Amino acid sequence: MAVELKNDRLLRALLRQPVDVTPIWIMRQAGRYLPEYRETRKQAGDFLTLCTTPELACKVTLQPVDRFPLDAAILFSDILTIPNAMGLGLYFVEGEGPRFERPIRTQSDVAALGVPDPETELRYVIDTVRLVRQELQGRVPLIGFAGSPWTLATYMVEGGGSKDFARTKALMFDQPALAHKLLEILADAVSAYLNAQVDAGAQTLMIFDTWGGVLTPRDYKAFSLHYMQRIVACLTREHDGRRVPIILFTRNSGASLEAIADSSCDAIGVDWTTDIGDARRRVGHAVGLQGNMDPAMLYASPDRIRDEAAVVLASYGAGSGHVFNLGHGITPDVDPDHLAVLVDAVHELSRQYH
Amino acid sequence: MAVELKNDRLLRALLRQPVDVTPIWIMRQAGRYLPEYRETRKQAGDFLTLCTTPELACKVTLQPVDRFPLDAAILFSDILTIPNAMGLGLYFVEGEGPRFERPIRTQSDVAALGVPDPETELRYVIDTVRLVRQELQGRVPLIGFAGSPWTLATYMVEGGGSKDFARTKALMFDQPALAHKLLEILADAVSAYLNAQVDAGAQTLMIFDTWGGVLTPRDYKAFSLHYMQRIVACLTREHDGRRVPIILFTRNSGASLEAIADSSCDAIGVDWTTDIGDARRRVGHAVGLQGNMDPAMLYASPDRIRDEAAVVLASYGAGSGHVFNLGHGITPDVDPDHLAVLVDAVHELSRQYH
Repeated sequence: MAVELKNDRLLRALLRQPVDVTPIWIMRQAGRYLPEYRETRKQAGDFLTLCTTPELACKVTLQPVDRFPLDAAILFSDILTIPNAMGLGLYFVEGEGPRFERPIRTQSDVAALGVPDPETELRYVIDTVRLVRQELQGRVPLIGFAGSPWTLATYMVEGGGSKDFARTKALMFDQPALAHKLLEILADAVSAYLNAQVDAGAQTLMIFDTWGGVLTPRDYKAFSLHYMQRIVACLTREHDGRRVPIILFTRNSGASLEAIADSSCDAIGVDWTTDIGDARRRVGHAVGLQGNMDPAMLYASPDRIRDEAAVVLASYGAGSGHVFNLGHGITPDVDPDHLAVLVDAVHELSRQYH
Repeated sequence: MAVELKNDRLLRALLRQPVDVTPIWIMRQAGRYLPEYRETRKQAGDFLTLCTTPELACKVTLQPVDRFPLDAAILFSDILTIPNAMGLGLYFVEGEGPRFERPIRTQSDVAALGVPDPETELRYVIDTVRLVRQELQGRVPLIGFAGSPWTLATYMVEGGGSKDFARTKALMFDQPALAHKLLEILADAVSAYLNAQVDAGAQTLMIFDTWGGVLTPRDYKAFSLHYMQRIVACLTREHDGRRVPIILFTRNSGASLEAIADSSCDAIGVDWTTDIGDARRRVGHAVGLQGNMDPAMLYASPDRIRDEAAVVLASYGAGSGHVFNLGHGITPDVDPDHLAVLVDAVHELSRQYH
């Protein structure tokens, strides 16, 4: 029998159910801006060891929740666990980001890909989810996550990060059938992975489509959103008697909000290049919204941060359906005390809207 | 007495006047993808010498117009000529982009900035414009350009390129009056610079706001668009008996098209993350539109490139007001023959819409 969830603001707000105040969590809240994270990372030796050791991954997952009154924990992991489990050989070059030893370039590369079994090949992630749930003792809900098929494909085809996605786009433009085949396999892998996270205790799920916004709106629908929608259709929507809300986040997708809202997801992550009030007018009748303060605002003074929190809250306006977050991940140089100011400001200033 | 302009499609399309076919030019058409450019660049020794030597800058300006039936030439220069003339000490680190020896960080740094006199301190640019006009002999119009105040400010404050614009945004958030002061000076400098280009022979003007799209829509209006609008109000709108159309291009500004259209510009550059048909429905009654094929499409096969040109043309639809372009600059690895295919396709396939 699961421990009772003491703070369910996040789950309620994602489903547009009444809340006392607007919940807040922060993308990359378990990250380098926290000295305790840097310490654990040093102990681990390298980033991959931190991800693949459940005790350490659990520890850093809990660090921000212990330090700030955040309304959610998010599993500490990396979106590239899936391609790594597919055998591409993930490694990290210090200061340069992720790389794959064996990128995917040909028809036979794609044909050789299998869908990893989460309970065996991604066991360290699923064990981390179980451990975090146990350690959280129902304080806040745990968010599980995965990368979107399109975003994973870009890393797999480019062999790492990219500026213009030349190889992935050339594949998509000239060999669309092969690109679709790759994306199908990834959609199946992500679905199985996320369902295993729910079985292990994740109470809500988020799909990160970091690079969907580098596509035209038409290509985004066909090559990214289509596969996220396919995943949403495969996911466990209720667990332990409670709805498991699904959040889709595509950076730079302001032009496609209506299409995303039609995907059967519960909520949409919005970056700071869309006004959240405009987003609500466009799709707020159908989905919850998560976002969207400019992450660079955390470099500003505490007073300015409070003012901006007020602006974002006012832009969304009265009623539930808003989960406060940054428009993208918190950056490593931010002073953690500035995040403390933001969390308090959101809780305090949002009361009037509920 | 000026030589008669033989191909005025660009000027007519920007003003939504009838044309026979849709005109096309390409951002960074005088650039590294052309072997003849790389050759001249090598002769010059370095990028700054190429920019500051009118004979060489004129030569590379004409290269793409000599090779392809493009409908415009664009002045070969760099947006950072203005801050360089202000004394910041521009230099380039091979493979890493532009840097400034003396970035702008304090109130006294801003107070020390003057507005450069284009005819003396930026004489090499104005001389290049004169030389290009002479050499073009009216074949196609010449586009003059400058960076937007916000975009210039980011380089000046960061001291070069940036990923998150932490210093510039912190200045904007915490010292807005100082940020506005800097942007005012830059708006005055850009206005004088662009008017001098028109006096010297530029027949249309484009303001490149490469980084306006990293702001929230609210900050974009206050800190970027506001100053472009101020420039537009200061510019010479008619020269030699002909309207001088003004194009504003902000990358990633899909959320702000209506506001940009209200700036009194003649046309808006649109990147590929907005559908150009949607853009036309939103603002096409007020302004021309320039864009917006995904630059990565030029990595695809000739047939695919033709198909995509057809899609972009069909999305804009019938009637004038469209200048075909990529949604951003052409990339160095593109095969020039692929651009030839695109130029021909646009001229051939657009005839049905006029």
